[in-house]
Amino acid sequence: MRPSSSPSEPAPEGPGGGLFGPLFGSPAVTAQVGDRAWLQAMLDVERALAAAGAGAGVIPDGAAKAIAACCEADRFDLGDLGRRAAASGSPVVPLVRDLTALVPGNAAPYVHHGATSQDVLDTAAALVARRALAPLLADLHAAADACAGLARAHRNTVLVARTLLQQALPTTFGLKCAGWLVALDEAAAGLDRVRRERLAVQLGGAAGTLASLGDAGPRVLRLLADELDLAEPVLPWHTNRVRVAELAGALGTASGVLAKIALDVLLLAQSEVAEVAEGHGDSGGDGGDGERRGGSSAMPHKRNPVRAMLVTAGTRRVPGLVATLLASMAQEHERAAGAWQAEWEPLGELLRLVGGAAASTRDLLAGLEVDAERMRADLDRAGGLPMAESVAGRLAPALGRTAAHETVARVSRAAAAGRPFAEALRDEPEVAAHLSAADLAAALDPERYLGSAGAFVDRALAAHRAGDVRGDR
Amino acid sequence: MRPSSSPSEPAPEGPGGGLFGPLFGSPAVTAQVGDRAWLQAMLDVERALAAAGAGAGVIPDGAAKAIAACCEADRFDLGDLGRRAAASGSPVVPLVRDLTALVPGNAAPYVHHGATSQDVLDTAAALVARRALAPLLADLHAAADACAGLARAHRNTVLVARTLLQQALPTTFGLKCAGWLVALDEAAAGLDRVRRERLAVQLGGAAGTLASLGDAGPRVLRLLADELDLAEPVLPWHTNRVRVAELAGALGTASGVLAKIALDVLLLAQSEVAEVAEGHGDSGGDGGDGERRGGSSAMPHKRNPVRAMLVTAGTRRVPGLVATLLASMAQEHERAAGAWQAEWEPLGELLRLVGGAAASTRDLLAGLEVDAERMRADLDRAGGLPMAESVAGRLAPALGRTAAHETVARVSRAAAAGRPFAEALRDEPEVAAHLSAADLAAALDPERYLGSAGAFVDRALAAHRAGDVRGDR
Amino acid sequence: MRPSSSPSEPAPEGPGGGLFGPLFGSPAVTAQVGDRAWLQAMLDVERALAAAGAGAGVIPDGAAKAIAACCEADRFDLGDLGRRAAASGSPVVPLVRDLTALVPGNAAPYVHHGATSQDVLDTAAALVARRALAPLLADLHAAADACAGLARAHRNTVLVARTLLQQALPTTFGLKCAGWLVALDEAAAGLDRVRRERLAVQLGGAAGTLASLGDAGPRVLRLLADELDLAEPVLPWHTNRVRVAELAGALGTASGVLAKIALDVLLLAQSEVAEVAEGHGDSGGDGGDGERRGGSSAMPHKRNPVRAMLVTAGTRRVPGLVATLLASMAQEHERAAGAWQAEWEPLGELLRLVGGAAASTRDLLAGLEVDAERMRADLDRAGGLPMAESVAGRLAPALGRTAAHETVARVSRAAAAGRPFAEALRDEPEVAAHLSAADLAAALDPERYLGSAGAFVDRALAAHRAGDVRGDR
Amino acid sequence: MRPSSSPSEPAPEGPGGGLFGPLFGSPAVTAQVGDRAWLQAMLDVERALAAAGAGAGVIPDGAAKAIAACCEADRFDLGDLGRRAAASGSPVVPLVRDLTALVPGNAAPYVHHGATSQDVLDTAAALVARRALAPLLADLHAAADACAGLARAHRNTVLVARTLLQQALPTTFGLKCAGWLVALDEAAAGLDRVRRERLAVQLGGAAGTLASLGDAGPRVLRLLADELDLAEPVLPWHTNRVRVAELAGALGTASGVLAKIALDVLLLAQSEVAEVAEGHGDSGGDGGDGERRGGSSAMPHKRNPVRAMLVTAGTRRVPGLVATLLASMAQEHERAAGAWQAEWEPLGELLRLVGGAAASTRDLLAGLEVDAERMRADLDRAGGLPMAESVAGRLAPALGRTAAHETVARVSRAAAAGRPFAEALRDEPEVAAHLSAADLAAALDPERYLGSAGAFVDRALAAHRAGDVRGDR
Repeated sequence: MRPSSSPSEPAPEGPGGGLFGPLFGSPAVTAQVGDRAWLQAMLDVERALAAAGAGAGVIPDGAAKAIAACCEADRFDLGDLGRRAAASGSPVVPLVRDLTALVPGNAAPYVHHGATSQDVLDTAAALVARRALAPLLADLHAAADACAGLARAHRNTVLVARTLLQQALPTTFGLKCAGWLVALDEAAAGLDRVRRERLAVQLGGAAGTLASLGDAGPRVLRLLADELDLAEPVLPWHTNRVRVAELAGALGTASGVLAKIALDVLLLAQSEVAEVAEGHGDSGGDGGDGERRGGSSAMPHKRNPVRAMLVTAGTRRVPGLVATLLASMAQEHERAAGAWQAEWEPLGELLRLVGGAAASTRDLLAGLEVDAERMRADLDRAGGLPMAESVAGRLAPALGRTAAHETVARVSRAAAAGRPFAEALRDEPEVAAHLSAADLAAALDPERYLGSAGAFVDRALAAHRAGDVRGDR
Repeated sequence: MRPSSSPSEPAPEGPGGGLFGPLFGSPAVTAQVGDRAWLQAMLDVERALAAAGAGAGVIPDGAAKAIAACCEADRFDLGDLGRRAAASGSPVVPLVRDLTALVPGNAAPYVHHGATSQDVLDTAAALVARRALAPLLADLHAAADACAGLARAHRNTVLVARTLLQQALPTTFGLKCAGWLVALDEAAAGLDRVRRERLAVQLGGAAGTLASLGDAGPRVLRLLADELDLAEPVLPWHTNRVRVAELAGALGTASGVLAKIALDVLLLAQSEVAEVAEGHGDSGGDGGDGERRGGSSAMPHKRNPVRAMLVTAGTRRVPGLVATLLASMAQEHERAAGAWQAEWEPLGELLRLVGGAAASTRDLLAGLEVDAERMRADLDRAGGLPMAESVAGRLAPALGRTAAHETVARVSRAAAAGRPFAEALRDEPEVAAHLSAADLAAALDPERYLGSAGAFVDRALAAHRAGDVRGDR
Repeated sequence: MRPSSSPSEPAPEGPGGGLFGPLFGSPAVTAQVGDRAWLQAMLDVERALAAAGAGAGVIPDGAAKAIAACCEADRFDLGDLGRRAAASGSPVVPLVRDLTALVPGNAAPYVHHGATSQDVLDTAAALVARRALAPLLADLHAAADACAGLARAHRNTVLVARTLLQQALPTTFGLKCAGWLVALDEAAAGLDRVRRERLAVQLGGAAGTLASLGDAGPRVLRLLADELDLAEPVLPWHTNRVRVAELAGALGTASGVLAKIALDVLLLAQSEVAEVAEGHGDSGGDGGDGERRGGSSAMPHKRNPVRAMLVTAGTRRVPGLVATLLASMAQEHERAAGAWQAEWEPLGELLRLVGGAAASTRDLLAGLEVDAERMRADLDRAGGLPMAESVAGRLAPALGRTAAHETVARVSRAAAAGRPFAEALRDEPEVAAHLSAADLAAALDPERYLGSAGAFVDRALAAHRAGDVRGDR
Repeated sequence: MRPSSSPSEPAPEGPGGGLFGPLFGSPAVTAQVGDRAWLQAMLDVERALAAAGAGAGVIPDGAAKAIAACCEADRFDLGDLGRRAAASGSPVVPLVRDLTALVPGNAAPYVHHGATSQDVLDTAAALVARRALAPLLADLHAAADACAGLARAHRNTVLVARTLLQQALPTTFGLKCAGWLVALDEAAAGLDRVRRERLAVQLGGAAGTLASLGDAGPRVLRLLADELDLAEPVLPWHTNRVRVAELAGALGTASGVLAKIALDVLLLAQSEVAEVAEGHGDSGGDGGDGERRGGSSAMPHKRNPVRAMLVTAGTRRVPGLVATLLASMAQEHERAAGAWQAEWEPLGELLRLVGGAAASTRDLLAGLEVDAERMRADLDRAGGLPMAESVAGRLAPALGRTAAHETVARVSRAAAAGRPFAEALRDEPEVAAHLSAADLAAALDPERYLGSAGAFVDRALAAHRAGDVRGDR
């Protein structure tokens, strides 16, 4: 513990910092969606706008250079900008004023030339998203690689499949990991598509006509896109929010995939199941002064699945944020009175939360401790009941599917009441009549009832290697 | 099982029928997402599964044919299936039982061979989605075509742009329609991509291994995909819900686009604006006994924008449904206990609501009455204030951007207080010093301050013609 | 208008009927939120409006009686009304037309006198809610009674408490049930408050002034409230949707309580835990032709927790619907163009889904099979680790809280690796130095470490008996 | 502009600070929901817990005093706590460690005695909520008072009511304000009820049994409630989240009321309507260096309704947050692995956003500029059409309601086409036959067709004065 030496130097509050921020965000993504990152992105837009204006001949080259020299976030007082933003409802208004005051007098008239506040904010949002998606996608890919490693290593590790939280049939842990892998690859592919194709500059001027640029509008638009390496849209998209919705949708999809993996890990890590555990790896998160990962303030023996829990917590907040962005697509006329402004913080939150969940999942999977013996033991402890379908399948040709199903169900109920399933089956005349002891033993062997599990694992690994991101054949 | 004696009779309640259904759904889409459509889709899956099994040599050809002959929804009692579904939590369980009873005895063992309930429901959902998306996409395309027609016809129709619901600058109605057009094209492209690439068969058997098919699993999977013309997934996707999330996201995006158009129409149709009105076309919806479209039960003079209102109402419900589907992606192990079952009704609702909104928007745009004279008159009545930026732009070279902006703002405030803007400008020394009367007249002419409006309209029309659906260059 | 010839015939589709409806709705609530119930509620409003008008002297008594005689849902063609509703956007417009045509000519001018469509729909919604809440609240109360029975019966049944899905400490199953009980009582109290206090008549006429009633408005309003036994609002609430939001919030709260119980049951019913199971009681839901509750189409041995699964599925859809209703509170001026109409179907869905979940939870709890021996055995199998806090607590006076915690944590890790915890503790010098064998045995006895569990159960039962619904002291 | 002198002294980011925070939060509420406020609240709980322990005789008085002396947020390093929180998933774990290190050695064993992390966080959440609700409720009440003032002042100010965004009938601006007033009073009453009755201490120890307190549990619980002036719950509510849901629901309801007012203001402030405008009052928000409230970066003449816009933006984000909290009610067993942790940030966000919207609405209403002449002029410009119902009502006795409605509708359509309505009515034989010129003039006088508007205003004001917060009679 180090009491804060100077409490007046505020430790950063809110997203990314403070008491709760580090639980739900990764440092790499959080740094790209914080207020300072937004400020720099807005200044990058102002710089690029000036450069594009110079390229199109609508402002002098020297002015563009002078403006560029001032577009550094450190030269602005972020808190002051925020406070002054309330008067106009946009931080770009005071920012443009301060930037204009900062540049040499002869460059001042060319600051923000041709643009309106929304142009700067929307294009900055595209930059923020691109910069945040880089580490986020890297974490998704790393998580997928970890899944691939697990799928390969456990291609033949038998465990019991569970449906409706009941033990069902044998499957392999490799196939379970392959399922996570395909979902991660699909989610990453969707996000990557949005990142590559759909992040675009916005430049429309006060009302979408670029009137103040005369007939140079499309030329400046093209050059601005080139400067920032963002897509050039057919039209300004100030009240066409499809791009925002697509980004939100892809983030929501990735979030759901991460939530599913975390849920499986939580369930497998239950004390009563204990087939996996979170590792105690060094990779981040442990308190410097010895807080043990997964420790409890009250219970000394606890080893909690903290990462899976935090992924669960973070991803639960995502659908509501996606809904907010979708509901905000109905934007009036040429600029919305509220629906647009409602996007700003939720968009950053979405990136932060999904980024945090991706990083935690990467760590979780990289360090996952898998207890293959326990998996097999759990299956054996089930006393053969998960082989019921297998037995019924071998009886079906003789008894018919329905009768075979009912016969085995009847025996299963007896077994659930305590009788060993194999024994109960042996004593059932309808079974004995059609299955020899060897047939029955084969029917009860989990490793002989894995169907296409191995083949499916191989398909998933091949698709992952091929970067066949769409995930379909 | 009691085959419905007279399927044409029931006045269907609920989605699609009843008191509220017809307000929010189109007949074409509603018919594809109703319970009967689900039932037929499930039977189509059972039929195709049998055919695939025969193709793969795991069931006799004759059995597949016998099963196919029974897979007609009319032969099943939908209400009875629903009531019996509660015991297992899935309508597939009683359906398989009834289908098995219906086929000849020697085919009975081959019904549902290799599949589990979820295989049938998930694949049926893909079929339902594909069938509902056909009319839905047709309506989106028709709405886009109507926008294109309006954009072309009104390429040069001047109206005032509004930002934050305040009159801002001149723009054209053509550009407004081009904005709708690009958004519709983008939304349709996104939905179409999901329809073509992401609707897939699900076949995993009880736990995703296809164990009961021995090693024939992948072969049956491939043949099933061929039979139904759906994508073949790398792996069974029983608890990988990326496909569902992508469909939901694309529907949510389309919904937001439709909501934006409806909102613009509602605002333009306000009594005080009255620049557009909904048409009284014959194309559906008018009561047979003379209810006038847009009539009010209390106010004889009202002519309400009913279609835009209903699109607004329907699309408002979409983000919550998308959130539900995203939140349901966290599905346990090999089959979820609740999260999967939570998808069924919301997925149909999403298709129904977006389908209804698309159809209403198509009608709305096709019949939209545009009052170009009123648009121009509204702009003129604004007394030149929307030309303030134009005037400031002409003063900027002489006064500097900030000073020009402030000078014009000062004059604008005087004008807002009642003085004609042109006159107030003339009397302002700083203006008179730099702008001649002719310059001022030019600065105040809306048609000379449309910037790239026309060029943007042309870009949007060219992209629409080219089917350049992604919307980017 | 064509009175439905045979109202008993249709196999209703959609909510309540069809393939999925019976899974998620109870018959009693579903019947109150279907289209026919809405139609009758609207007619009840028209009848009461006429009676109130007569009472206030603004229409003749005879007219009121003649109108009342026609206000029977069976005399109207629901499907036809729905189809004709699209022209005006409200089913009340064609309904008033048909009702006017149905009454004797001299009564016709008095139909719907003073009201607008929204008055009828909003007041009908209050009636629909009240009628649906009666069985819904009865089911919540019955579920609470079942919890009380379980809490009483299992006041001293020891089981292991689980935090973050890890075994933690001993608790009692009675205390777990008492937690459910208090939550159910609180949720029911909140809903009941809304039902008693906040369901109100809406009567404002075309724009909220009751202008067409002259100065008789408040008198008619009061009498209408009396007729329908609904609250009389201070003002018409046509665009003040606090009442709708409060109902939605209370339903959302109840839904969350039901979801928590279902989740606990699902987790306790896992094959690996198996401390509870859903009963196979006769109380509804089993297929008439022998579908076993909880059966699987593929796996003969499965006994799925179907009720808990369906509660989970239904309640997952509730937050999105509540969000839709909250987001629809922003209603323009004197009647919204979309936001109001967006309420209709979601409100019914909310009542249906929460009603279904309440009924299923009632059945689930009433039939819950509790395996107290298994609970104890699971605790014992944990090898004493859940007693770690107990041991640490006894060591704290001697070692200090932190050191005691760390000592026991160290021993716990050894125990987790396979060593019996009691033995490992005995061998730890710091433990042995401070705890005698008898102390240690006491520290490891779960029944001696239940703290206030029993007292808390008694408090919960007393509050339940007292109907101390607020749940606070 | 003041370039930040030392960029390494971070300006606080995120909620409340930074670029966007001040737009959506009020300083008073923001200060109560920031990380420092949470930290202090947690320390307040630790202090009160020690005091309660001393009161109950389970820890020494001296230890409680020593602990209390250290419970000052300034003595802790908030950022460091946050970073270390990730290991356990809770900031309470490192906080307790630091607090223990800070107190004198003999008090150390008594820190956090009997509690678990969740006890501290949940009780701290109740404190945070209570402290944030004080300024939030004060702003709601001030907004209501402002509405009352407007309703009184404009009791007889005639304006046109609008339904579905179409001019409908005359009403008064006073009645519109009275509608806002009643909604605000109802929303504040709901929030106040939660604040007074439902904010409770949580104290259950590791698993809800208070085992480590022996049999002193209920006594400590009672004393803790007394210390903090929070309610004492019947049971620990660690996984009964009804209280959180009720708070969220009441905040969501208040948010919807504020959104409705903001929407009405935005619509009335449209350039084409201009019946109200936001004031340029001094009360906060204007940039220190002259940014004009409502100014635009591009358009010198703009005077944007910034406050209404920001209220609209902030409240749009609320339903998604409420949905997140409702969906998080399903918490596993004795402590949730994710669903609980998902509450922390959204709860603060909800308070911050609704607090910001309440404060902005207060300012908006207090400074609202109402143009009563323009209201009357707009009504007159409508040419009498809003009097159509009035005319039809006077014709109904003679023609019958339906025929009167249709006659007036026919004349209205002629009037909409350009003919003065009064003149068109005079020329219609069916009108002339039944209404004299004087009758017609009376029928066309808006002030004679206000019904109960005045009476309703009086009712709302009386209820407001009486603090009859429930809003019903």
